[in-house]
Amino acid sequence: MSEAAGSIRAGIVVTGTEVLTGRIADRNGPWLSERLAELGVDVAHILVVGDRPGDLEAALRFMAAEGMDLIVTSGGLGPTADDLTAEVVARFAGRELVLDEEMEGKIAAILRGFARRFSFDEEAMRTANRKQAMVPEGAIALDPVGTAPGLVVPAGDRVVAVLPGPPRELRPMWSAALGTAPLRALLDRATPLHRCTLRMFGIPESEIAKSLREIEAEGVPLPEVEITTCLRRGEIEIDVSYRDEAAATAAAVRSGLAERHERHLFSLDGETIDSQVAALLAGRRLGLAESCSGGLLAARLTDVPGASAYLAGGVVAYSNGAKADLLGVDPGLIEAHGAVSPEVAAAMAVGALERFGADVAVSITGIAGPEGGSEEKPVGYVCFEARLADGTRIARQPVIPGGREDVRERSALVGMHLLRILLSGAEAPL
Amino acid sequence: MSEAAGSIRAGIVVTGTEVLTGRIADRNGPWLSERLAELGVDVAHILVVGDRPGDLEAALRFMAAEGMDLIVTSGGLGPTADDLTAEVVARFAGRELVLDEEMEGKIAAILRGFARRFSFDEEAMRTANRKQAMVPEGAIALDPVGTAPGLVVPAGDRVVAVLPGPPRELRPMWSAALGTAPLRALLDRATPLHRCTLRMFGIPESEIAKSLREIEAEGVPLPEVEITTCLRRGEIEIDVSYRDEAAATAAAVRSGLAERHERHLFSLDGETIDSQVAALLAGRRLGLAESCSGGLLAARLTDVPGASAYLAGGVVAYSNGAKADLLGVDPGLIEAHGAVSPEVAAAMAVGALERFGADVAVSITGIAGPEGGSEEKPVGYVCFEARLADGTRIARQPVIPGGREDVRERSALVGMHLLRILLSGAEAPL
Repeated sequence: MSEAAGSIRAGIVVTGTEVLTGRIADRNGPWLSERLAELGVDVAHILVVGDRPGDLEAALRFMAAEGMDLIVTSGGLGPTADDLTAEVVARFAGRELVLDEEMEGKIAAILRGFARRFSFDEEAMRTANRKQAMVPEGAIALDPVGTAPGLVVPAGDRVVAVLPGPPRELRPMWSAALGTAPLRALLDRATPLHRCTLRMFGIPESEIAKSLREIEAEGVPLPEVEITTCLRRGEIEIDVSYRDEAAATAAAVRSGLAERHERHLFSLDGETIDSQVAALLAGRRLGLAESCSGGLLAARLTDVPGASAYLAGGVVAYSNGAKADLLGVDPGLIEAHGAVSPEVAAAMAVGALERFGADVAVSITGIAGPEGGSEEKPVGYVCFEARLADGTRIARQPVIPGGREDVRERSALVGMHLLRILLSGAEAPL
Repeated sequence: MSEAAGSIRAGIVVTGTEVLTGRIADRNGPWLSERLAELGVDVAHILVVGDRPGDLEAALRFMAAEGMDLIVTSGGLGPTADDLTAEVVARFAGRELVLDEEMEGKIAAILRGFARRFSFDEEAMRTANRKQAMVPEGAIALDPVGTAPGLVVPAGDRVVAVLPGPPRELRPMWSAALGTAPLRALLDRATPLHRCTLRMFGIPESEIAKSLREIEAEGVPLPEVEITTCLRRGEIEIDVSYRDEAAATAAAVRSGLAERHERHLFSLDGETIDSQVAALLAGRRLGLAESCSGGLLAARLTDVPGASAYLAGGVVAYSNGAKADLLGVDPGLIEAHGAVSPEVAAAMAVGALERFGADVAVSITGIAGPEGGSEEKPVGYVCFEARLADGTRIARQPVIPGGREDVRERSALVGMHLLRILLSGAEAPL
């Protein structure tokens, strides 16, 4: 995307050895990135470093060299010796650390509460925490959400916002940081970025690339917007980000893709398949019959609060005996066609309708692997049926690529899409 | 932990606007960081950049300036125009991009399969894929796991390993990269870091901190090893990392923790609860009866290949009707005690034993929220029973903290641990 003139560039520095080593997942980088994008700030880098001052300094210098107007750091504000962010940022900004007595008082008041509640040694805590009241001269200290204050530090013609590591402290403090004069002045120069998301199912990414080339050839100035195409758990997610002046281009991209991929496009407004299926199921009664997906479709459907209003239940019929006893599948049918067959999938769906007194049912039976495949029915061969009580049905038997986990997860996803297609009367793309 | 002299420094560059903007979580950075640590490599930085060549170039230059011996990139190897990693890395390494005809043939063969199966435009795919066969001169191309080849590119006195973005492609390709001469030569200079993992269930982290202080007070030199304690999906995972010379200290830490926490420790060798339960279930026949966990216990058990040998199946009895019809729970019992009650959990377990002809069963019924809680039975109140056909049983009714997702996931986890305790005859910690 060509950058709007005067757009603000930001970099995020996440500190913490436990994040760097992969022990805990970084939730601050992505969260800050989304918040900054909404404000029209162009985030260029998220950099994770451990608790070593040299590496943090290198990170700040890199962000400055790359022309970041705003640097946001998370973590390293605690009372222990490896919490070094304030000190390193002060040096980076060329400012002395000075004791902020008002802040010291605020922290002491918070700690008194802790010490009393848990009968810790108050004096030891206060010594450890004086460090947290040391603030770079001329910086703005942000009141603690936990025990650590944050900082907004002007550094030449850029600003460094220093936030604590725990997400439940960082998030409210980010709002406080946005209210400070240095950040307000900076963000006034940014123009908000809009984003719309399209979702498709059953189509490879290369088809989208081809359509975008066609749309561009028709004269739509694609470089005005940023388009990201992402294969996400079996669906394609297409994000179009744009500033006000490119709204018409974004609309042309959306409609160009929608025209070309009507059968595969299921969401023009970012709504997920889970939420669409939940809406379509309102007032209905659903029964499930799963084999290879092993309960993943039930788990996915019940992930949505309020699923009990339409989900009667499901049977995970892993053994042939369970298919017969709990779903009434004729053992002769299994013997004739195999447990993984369109015939058995149909019988499982009928069984789920009956046993749960449901008006819609989905069945899944397949070979998840790694064992059990044959030439005729390879690993990944999965038989589906979605069926209404009146006999309307849609059945599919794809061979799903990938390993056991892929086959199982994708099976649940295909089940969701068959429900959507059956209940919405959409044309099936598979 | 003190760094070994001559240790190898590595940086990881994760590319992808969808990761930078927070649309998808980065799973590659943490995974690569863990793998590198195991090899004794010191990871200093993980840097996330979008799909802009300038930002990726800046990232590579930063890693070089910071003295990284190894740079690993993930992503940006796809067929679309925003996939630029190979080109940028070639420029960084001062190498021309040349067409690798053998690789082109391999990719074409993979794509022919796709194109035929889904009748997509083969020519569009081929054009897109020629780009993927462009390899920096003198680099080693790694065979595609999906459709994108990886690269190992010597760049002066450092090495850049270029891997695809999807984790299921990146992980196997990392193994292939490790087999190449440039990476082997580099890693020969690193001294391996060993790691052992202990797992506990049903104990707070603060107890571990206290035990570690005691162990140190007894004279075990803890600073020789690196100990990380991490609450991970409801279990405590304690990692002890050490180089050869600290093996005795690591052993003393392990045995000190094992002595103190025998009832809560279920794994001394890193083995997961999933694999332990799978082993305990060999030769048995398991039936499940789930309500609030909505199939998550079934999904977790069937995630293990070969689960069909012992899992007969499960019922997701979300409605009261399903509890009665599919598990034979007396509707009067539900009326008298409520669907979430120890009595109904017991009846569900008995029903699962009978309906599946099983010799062991687990039942779960609880209030996942956000609605449906009361003063007597708050959100998070979950009733469990694990039961053998001979009537031996273990029942628990914890109140699980957290939101809907936490309650559901933790319910499946408690189900796993009750199975372990029942089948192994261990003492129950709950």
